[in-house]
Amino acid sequence: MRAVVMRNRQLLVADVPTPEPGPGEVLVRTLACGICGSDLHAFRHAERFVEAGRRAGNPRVMDLARDVVMGHEFCAEIVEHGPGTTRALRIGTRVCSRPTLLRATGPQSIGYSNDNPGGYGEYMRLTEALLLEVPADLSTEHAAFTEPMAVGVHAVARARLEPDDAPLVIGCGPVGLAVIAALRLRGVRPIVAADFSPLRRELAVALGADTVVDPAEHAPWQSWREAAVWRDASRAPRLPPWVPGPPRRPAVVFECVGVPGVLDQIMAAAPRDTRIVVVGVCMEPDTIYPLLGIAKELSVQFVLGYTPDEFAATLGHIAEGAIPVAPLLTGRVGLGAVARAFEDLAAPDRHAKILVEPRRD
Amino acid sequence: MRAVVMRNRQLLVADVPTPEPGPGEVLVRTLACGICGSDLHAFRHAERFVEAGRRAGNPRVMDLARDVVMGHEFCAEIVEHGPGTTRALRIGTRVCSRPTLLRATGPQSIGYSNDNPGGYGEYMRLTEALLLEVPADLSTEHAAFTEPMAVGVHAVARARLEPDDAPLVIGCGPVGLAVIAALRLRGVRPIVAADFSPLRRELAVALGADTVVDPAEHAPWQSWREAAVWRDASRAPRLPPWVPGPPRRPAVVFECVGVPGVLDQIMAAAPRDTRIVVVGVCMEPDTIYPLLGIAKELSVQFVLGYTPDEFAATLGHIAEGAIPVAPLLTGRVGLGAVARAFEDLAAPDRHAKILVEPRRD
Repeated sequence: MRAVVMRNRQLLVADVPTPEPGPGEVLVRTLACGICGSDLHAFRHAERFVEAGRRAGNPRVMDLARDVVMGHEFCAEIVEHGPGTTRALRIGTRVCSRPTLLRATGPQSIGYSNDNPGGYGEYMRLTEALLLEVPADLSTEHAAFTEPMAVGVHAVARARLEPDDAPLVIGCGPVGLAVIAALRLRGVRPIVAADFSPLRRELAVALGADTVVDPAEHAPWQSWREAAVWRDASRAPRLPPWVPGPPRRPAVVFECVGVPGVLDQIMAAAPRDTRIVVVGVCMEPDTIYPLLGIAKELSVQFVLGYTPDEFAATLGHIAEGAIPVAPLLTGRVGLGAVARAFEDLAAPDRHAKILVEPRRD
Repeated sequence: MRAVVMRNRQLLVADVPTPEPGPGEVLVRTLACGICGSDLHAFRHAERFVEAGRRAGNPRVMDLARDVVMGHEFCAEIVEHGPGTTRALRIGTRVCSRPTLLRATGPQSIGYSNDNPGGYGEYMRLTEALLLEVPADLSTEHAAFTEPMAVGVHAVARARLEPDDAPLVIGCGPVGLAVIAALRLRGVRPIVAADFSPLRRELAVALGADTVVDPAEHAPWQSWREAAVWRDASRAPRLPPWVPGPPRRPAVVFECVGVPGVLDQIMAAAPRDTRIVVVGVCMEPDTIYPLLGIAKELSVQFVLGYTPDEFAATLGHIAEGAIPVAPLLTGRVGLGAVARAFEDLAAPDRHAKILVEPRRD
């Protein structure tokens, strides 16, 4: 099959073996697959990506000497049932799935793998038990947003939000936008969101942010302070007289940038008792000043992925329009233009999400 | 009065002005004052200590060009009531207090301050409203442990422990020992604790640890895994077949070392979903690998100090013997020997806590 392979630190279109579905697996044709920021990182800093995975305890890190077909945000259609399948979904059914193969020896990644090609190729094999049928009235390209939007749903769930919490979202790339959509879905407002890019701030509003901030012009925490004032003053805690008022609601900040230094900036600027949820995936070492956390008794919750229930619920939310994804789709490419799309995505003011459609071009 | 002053990066005994109690304040004579690890750090890395405090938002950092009399773990006796006091406690009453002056302009530190001398001097001024009378049958030297032990009580309270949580304490200096005592007080067991020093491991057992580990010989997390097996198997979660069993209870690890690199080691070795409580005060920049936290969805709760209620409760626990502090007292010095005691405390196998008794020698 044709696929974009990562080979010798390059992305190139090549013919690779079509995967064969094992027991309980199906072969699917990729219809659309989003390019994830982690893919950009895995390509640009491949050694570091692998080393970080190894240090994090992943027993199946990629071997960079061998081909890798990335892509884990996909919508596909069933073309063949492997042995031992129930065939509950017929050939031609459009499906989404978590990018995981459930094997007897343990789960395996689809995409960041030498053995399990992802959505930047014409075909993938998926575990039948994980397949979710795409509702008939949901477009393929919107269904492909299930995976990245589920990341936001999960991050907000892990934040253990209380009714009075006041959120701040740092970074409005796809991860931050998914968090904004999930916050809006929960009715946690007002949502303050910060990004240097005008396009991303516009998208943040489209997905539900109430206030957007350009950090080059205005401190995000200043906007948060304005938004986080208690409207029902009787519920607000009494501040000691030396603390400048008015009192603010509890701060929950979502770190959705994922580059070194951002966590430190947040820890330096956050008010006392802030809960920081780290959703952006920083794959490099990062420097923090623990005393900042200690002095303000901050907490940091790192999050990743989603539960099976969250993934399925996200597909439903997208189908119902409760999570609006249309504004996020800023480009579509065939396999031949994937390498160029990786470059384009480095400019945050031109794109949010580019979908790869292997049958295009 | 005579006091040990930090001056020109040295600790020396000098005559300094006796503090005068302001409105609502009392003058006390210091009876005993523990030397805290943070004092060692503030002395050895004074610039860094001040810079870290400034970055953490402390509006009243020390001016190192001026004298500082440290010491914040004290027991004292009232010698004079200042203006506007209720005089509820009489002259000669032994008291403990949080090391804070409550002033109309905001709280001020006692000890890490150019203006408010701490317990390494003959006299201090304290806020009357914060005074806690020491019970008649509690010795002065044990009462002086209220502050450091309250740190452990607070850390364990902030850990939001659930009945099934399995604790691990990394580092058995005074902070780790306080955490062990507080865990034992709550009945959270078994308690696994790790330290390189045989003396500290012995003290950990004396304060309530069930298992102690020398990390040079045995991985602390291995001991934790043995201790964290579910005794009631019906309560244990089902593990997927590829995960090596048996299942373990949720991990809560207390970082009580406070030097760079330890948090990273914990993040690398901790199992999925571990909650890390950072109690050790690392005043230097520290490097972490966020991906370790992300891949395992770790959380990090930084903690500091104690609430007024926790401080008062700790004095009560010590008086009742519920927090045993006698084993911790490994030395007593007069003012002239404080500089030497700071050096001695660098050797973790000779001392736990040295008390300064200004009237000694």
